[in-house]
Amino acid sequence: MGLGRKHVLYDLWVDDASLLKQVDAWREILLAAAKGSGATIIDYQFHQFSPHGVTGFLLLAESHISVHTWPEEGLAALDIFTCGPMDTNFIIARLRERFKPCRERLTTVNRGIFDGFDNKR
Amino acid sequence: MGLGRKHVLYDLWVDDASLLKQVDAWREILLAAAKGSGATIIDYQFHQFSPHGVTGFLLLAESHISVHTWPEEGLAALDIFTCGPMDTNFIIARLRERFKPCRERLTTVNRGIFDGFDNKR
Repeated sequence: MGLGRKHVLYDLWVDDASLLKQVDAWREILLAAAKGSGATIIDYQFHQFSPHGVTGFLLLAESHISVHTWPEEGLAALDIFTCGPMDTNFIIARLRERFKPCRERLTTVNRGIFDGFDNKR
Repeated sequence: MGLGRKHVLYDLWVDDASLLKQVDAWREILLAAAKGSGATIIDYQFHQFSPHGVTGFLLLAESHISVHTWPEEGLAALDIFTCGPMDTNFIIARLRERFKPCRERLTTVNRGIFDGFDNKR
């Protein structure tokens, strides 16, 4: 149990929300960051909402990366879920460089670790 | 801020891991559960790993659903991320009916709510 399944929940806020609206920018940033982190990309999907807002997903051999943006709030909510040796800090660093968040909330959850509740009685 | 962006992290363990290996079963279960929950499915991708293990993703108008399985540990790790009116409890109930987990770990995180750290100084 617990073979290093790390799930990073990363919410970031920016003053200039224009980048949050651009699906092409997100695709490019996340593909490059994933490759640089050592991840193996199996597939990906990105979607531009109307009038704005982006959602995207990278299916990885190591699990996944996802993003959802709410430009009207200057908010992007990212997930980086990995069970392998990929470098999640590399991805966070690339996002910080690109977006220069004015605020952020970063939480790491260890997935697949049992800590109590048991349906067997 | 905080327009009900709910992110459910659901890890479940089963005694009989055979279902965890079947990509077709996961596709069918999650598409049906998402539709029944009131979600709008934009796209989806599922992948069968060799020799076993499944990863899958549903891109929703409301955000996303993902699954990763480790049959060798009897484990499936699911995410249900929604910013809309979809019924996440409906999805959990369908998964419990189908998999009858012997153990589970269920956590809900409210995403996009700022609670302290500010990069502005």
